Amino acid sequence: MDIMVIFGSESDLPVGEEVRKIFDKLGVKFEMRIASAHRTPDRVYELIKKAEDQGAKAIIAGAGMSAHLAGVVASKTILPVIGIPMDAGPLHGIDSLLSTVNMPGGIPVATVSLGKAGGKNAALLACSIIALGNEKVSKALKDYRREMTAKVYEADRLLGVNNEE
Amino acid sequence: MDIMVIFGSESDLPVGEEVRKIFDKLGVKFEMRIASAHRTPDRVYELIKKAEDQGAKAIIAGAGMSAHLAGVVASKTILPVIGIPMDAGPLHGIDSLLSTVNMPGGIPVATVSLGKAGGKNAALLACSIIALGNEKVSKALKDYRREMTAKVYEADRLLGVNNEE
Amino acid sequence: MDIMVIFGSESDLPVGEEVRKIFDKLGVKFEMRIASAHRTPDRVYELIKKAEDQGAKAIIAGAGMSAHLAGVVASKTILPVIGIPMDAGPLHGIDSLLSTVNMPGGIPVATVSLGKAGGKNAALLACSIIALGNEKVSKALKDYRREMTAKVYEADRLLGVNNEE
Amino acid sequence: MDIMVIFGSESDLPVGEEVRKIFDKLGVKFEMRIASAHRTPDRVYELIKKAEDQGAKAIIAGAGMSAHLAGVVASKTILPVIGIPMDAGPLHGIDSLLSTVNMPGGIPVATVSLGKAGGKNAALLACSIIALGNEKVSKALKDYRREMTAKVYEADRLLGVNNEE
Amino acid sequence: MDIMVIFGSESDLPVGEEVRKIFDKLGVKFEMRIASAHRTPDRVYELIKKAEDQGAKAIIAGAGMSAHLAGVVASKTILPVIGIPMDAGPLHGIDSLLSTVNMPGGIPVATVSLGKAGGKNAALLACSIIALGNEKVSKALKDYRREMTAKVYEADRLLGVNNEE
Amino acid sequence: MDIMVIFGSESDLPVGEEVRKIFDKLGVKFEMRIASAHRTPDRVYELIKKAEDQGAKAIIAGAGMSAHLAGVVASKTILPVIGIPMDAGPLHGIDSLLSTVNMPGGIPVATVSLGKAGGKNAALLACSIIALGNEKVSKALKDYRREMTAKVYEADRLLGVNNEE
Amino acid sequence: MDIMVIFGSESDLPVGEEVRKIFDKLGVKFEMRIASAHRTPDRVYELIKKAEDQGAKAIIAGAGMSAHLAGVVASKTILPVIGIPMDAGPLHGIDSLLSTVNMPGGIPVATVSLGKAGGKNAALLACSIIALGNEKVSKALKDYRREMTAKVYEADRLLGVNNEE
Amino acid sequence: MDIMVIFGSESDLPVGEEVRKIFDKLGVKFEMRIASAHRTPDRVYELIKKAEDQGAKAIIAGAGMSAHLAGVVASKTILPVIGIPMDAGPLHGIDSLLSTVNMPGGIPVATVSLGKAGGKNAALLACSIIALGNEKVSKALKDYRREMTAKVYEADRLLGVNNEE
Repeated sequence: MDIMVIFGSESDLPVGEEVRKIFDKLGVKFEMRIASAHRTPDRVYELIKKAEDQGAKAIIAGAGMSAHLAGVVASKTILPVIGIPMDAGPLHGIDSLLSTVNMPGGIPVATVSLGKAGGKNAALLACSIIALGNEKVSKALKDYRREMTAKVYEADRLLGVNNEE
Repeated sequence: MDIMVIFGSESDLPVGEEVRKIFDKLGVKFEMRIASAHRTPDRVYELIKKAEDQGAKAIIAGAGMSAHLAGVVASKTILPVIGIPMDAGPLHGIDSLLSTVNMPGGIPVATVSLGKAGGKNAALLACSIIALGNEKVSKALKDYRREMTAKVYEADRLLGVNNEE
Repeated sequence: MDIMVIFGSESDLPVGEEVRKIFDKLGVKFEMRIASAHRTPDRVYELIKKAEDQGAKAIIAGAGMSAHLAGVVASKTILPVIGIPMDAGPLHGIDSLLSTVNMPGGIPVATVSLGKAGGKNAALLACSIIALGNEKVSKALKDYRREMTAKVYEADRLLGVNNEE
Repeated sequence: MDIMVIFGSESDLPVGEEVRKIFDKLGVKFEMRIASAHRTPDRVYELIKKAEDQGAKAIIAGAGMSAHLAGVVASKTILPVIGIPMDAGPLHGIDSLLSTVNMPGGIPVATVSLGKAGGKNAALLACSIIALGNEKVSKALKDYRREMTAKVYEADRLLGVNNEE
Repeated sequence: MDIMVIFGSESDLPVGEEVRKIFDKLGVKFEMRIASAHRTPDRVYELIKKAEDQGAKAIIAGAGMSAHLAGVVASKTILPVIGIPMDAGPLHGIDSLLSTVNMPGGIPVATVSLGKAGGKNAALLACSIIALGNEKVSKALKDYRREMTAKVYEADRLLGVNNEE
Repeated sequence: MDIMVIFGSESDLPVGEEVRKIFDKLGVKFEMRIASAHRTPDRVYELIKKAEDQGAKAIIAGAGMSAHLAGVVASKTILPVIGIPMDAGPLHGIDSLLSTVNMPGGIPVATVSLGKAGGKNAALLACSIIALGNEKVSKALKDYRREMTAKVYEADRLLGVNNEE
Repeated sequence: MDIMVIFGSESDLPVGEEVRKIFDKLGVKFEMRIASAHRTPDRVYELIKKAEDQGAKAIIAGAGMSAHLAGVVASKTILPVIGIPMDAGPLHGIDSLLSTVNMPGGIPVATVSLGKAGGKNAALLACSIIALGNEKVSKALKDYRREMTAKVYEADRLLGVNNEE
Repeated sequence: MDIMVIFGSESDLPVGEEVRKIFDKLGVKFEMRIASAHRTPDRVYELIKKAEDQGAKAIIAGAGMSAHLAGVVASKTILPVIGIPMDAGPLHGIDSLLSTVNMPGGIPVATVSLGKAGGKNAALLACSIIALGNEKVSKALKDYRREMTAKVYEADRLLGVNNEE
């Protein structure tokens, strides 16, 4: 396994789908699980152990509201921990963002964007870590960047808005 | 022990002093400890166990920034858990407040005011729980209320501002 | 009656339904009423008195916008008061949260999550207080926790997402 | 008495001083008192009654944090109630502002600026209400406006910054 | 005319409808107009003049986004000015609230709740000012309060939720 | 070309449509392109160069979330750069607003309203710059203002709400 | 005069000093005045007229709290209006920022950074507008940029921190 | 070089000192530079190139206000980019945080805590990435964790607050 992915709740799975799409496309092996810092803390610890034992390069953790999952994971491993703040709930994720990113000195969480953009970016950040020691993922990541660039160029080409001539 | 009190860091102790003053005044037995959800999670679990074993009626947990301590404590016990959001750090505690109060459904944290007012109120809330089964603390709490009322009356008496006569 | 539950408005009743479901499941006797700190303050006081007379262990108060209900209740009793900030209105509850949680030192309100998660958590917090002196509710609360844990395990089992084999 | 002024705490008195200065200058009779919605609610009701009995034209109420004072006063009188959100505490008054201004439909609070500017503006708003039926205060208020205008003109005259000649 | 009501845009009229309902019910004479601080400032000044000439007791001004209308009105009259922050636009009214309420010292705006609740409360606040010198409106306002109280009692009676007997 | 307009993503084009409508109406020549500070930075630099070479009077840049486009453009040109913060994403544009407006000293971005109002205002601000040296656009802008004023007067005329006669 | 600069209050002058330093350095003629949208609106209109009559290329307006000055200026001229939100007062300028930037569609304000950085950036933005038709200011602005770049290079050179050799 | 560290301004160096202390302690080779996304963008690109050429494992970028540095770096490399939001300026870093963390999908920034805690955590996160392929840093990081744990235990031991015996 390259990356362990943990979401705190079933309701986070649409964001998980963004993670999966990136990993499938870039050829990264992952395991995606549901485990809650508050409701199944012991399972969270098992999954951290499994990630470490199987040589994972990072753990992605996504949770909403008072989101403690990424911080709790980070407190139990020295693997890089990537936190995705969910944008669910009445406060649209500002609670989750602040609960994830502003960790006290000593235990970092690599926090990415809120919600679906965060799912995609968490996976890409994980790929950039894997790519340090994996030529295939490095190449796939560069290809992904080029493709993304090409898409913006294509959108621009199709737009073609100007009112001159 | 009536109440276990846990702060995440030494820097939280001025708030702890507010807790101590209330408990000393109202005759509540407590133990105040420093333990961190992120830096010493195992100690946190030991303290929860100790609180349960010694018949504590509630656990008070205070932490700052992405404050996970109260939520982590609440996930491991059915004792009432009272969270104090610290007002330290660049965001003055809005991070700590949102990290403490907006727990996902299933694991409540009884969150009180930010900072020093929160220290006082956490202790008083703990007293109101103890008072349900402890006539002495109930009486002390009522006395405290009366005294507080008297102080406001006295402040009002000393003020005596009006420009009529 | 174990718990008095007061909402400030009919529009809060979907959150009240979350409270009811927990109390019915865990075997807690409650009375749920509508009374407003601003529109029917005298009724609020009657309900506090009734709660005290009938041996209630806590009062739950839920209100929205500039939510004063929980604070007003707390000022008139030494029973533990649990505040639910409603997530209604243009500001999605940040007004209600700050109006409920940040009480001046001396009069605590045990504030829980915003909206429906808050309804569930208010009831569970009340149960944790009752459980201190009630073995049946204590057992029911532990069962509830186990069931919640089992549900997360089951969701995880059904997910079974990984792209390795 | 023209105006009853109530602050929730001694610590609000520097704002009260702004109120006093305006009322002294514009010739408005007032009584300024300390009474707390949470700590001395009965005194608050007495002061409302006194204001009504003595023909006050409005009640000014200033409080901080989860500021319920103005709303509680408004729920007990049909006199205009002017709320001053204090800018004290870790959140610098955003809590007090939202607790004061966003009252549920039916019970308005006329909310003014935060802190000292709010003290001045509360008094001036009260004067504008009194002025509706009091020629002397109306004239004093117009004079005050003229004087304020003159001060800005004078500041502008003294500044005299330009780099042209 | 008792009250001049100015909204900055047609899109504010659903809030205006709340104002109208209260004034019709309580027997207050008003004129409701659309005029913009930015797009038709001269019309705003005409309406202020008209309000003063016809003996209006207050001016209600409602606007959204960077809402300057109430402040601009207040700068040109010593009549009480009541500001309604609209809850429209991407920020749901926090922009409008802060643009309306936090006026520099010297020019107060009596700010009420956001959006529709604000429409109702602006009208009721205006009534409380009129009531100071108008027995009929004073009685109508007291009746309105009683009716509102009765409605809460009735909602409470219909609810009748408890799980005891 | 008078104005270069760059949006960071196809999803910003409804705001672009507001820009186009103003420029078409006021007779301003523009080119509207999609280019991303993060995904196609080199294209952004080409477009800046093109704008400078063709004598554009300003560059409008609109982007969402952590919106860097306007700042990146401003760092590479001394043309006036107008930033439109998009109101998309979970935070409704407060992220985009703060990422656009609060530039460190030395590199200004002329930031306008969020979302569609921002599209309209960016174009009008660009027109006000062009108008400094272009009598036709100056006249068109004055006409636009008059038309806008007339529309508010017409809306006011149609409203005609008052309950007096 | 190239630029008219208006601040709402004497207390804004430290920010005005930042404006002055840039204009003196880049050779821009300006007039700096104190006038308040609320306290001296008529003076504000005079200054707008003067700016237009003397061929100013833009008006800079800086104000704090519920900052209406820039919007009020923009409503009365088609000159580009640059708004500086002051960072004074309890809310540190978030009130001023939202009151300045989020103008309703039709009347743009070119808003820059909060406080002193905003003073500098407002002046530089004004220079970039002047530079469109003034070769000397254009050159001075390019020189300023180069100098700023050189300063960063110099700071970098002095730092020289690395722990390798 | 293991890690390239870039700060946008000299004023960020106290945070840089936190980075340095961690890297010195854990034996990580780094180069710390000052370069600005807005003032010296070309230098930023040179430093990215240098980092890539010299086999750096990550780039740390710290900037304040509308902080674009980390995003601009991330757009030009597939190395992991760690962003530190500075807590400087009137908004205490909420601007910097939102400008850094909420990157559009495709270009992630691994954002850590605000200010000094962020400096420490950025360095520790970088160490956790290096540790994946470097046994010595891995051991040093584990030692650091143990030491941190020991310090919390020691603080707890010294506290020894309880009022029972």
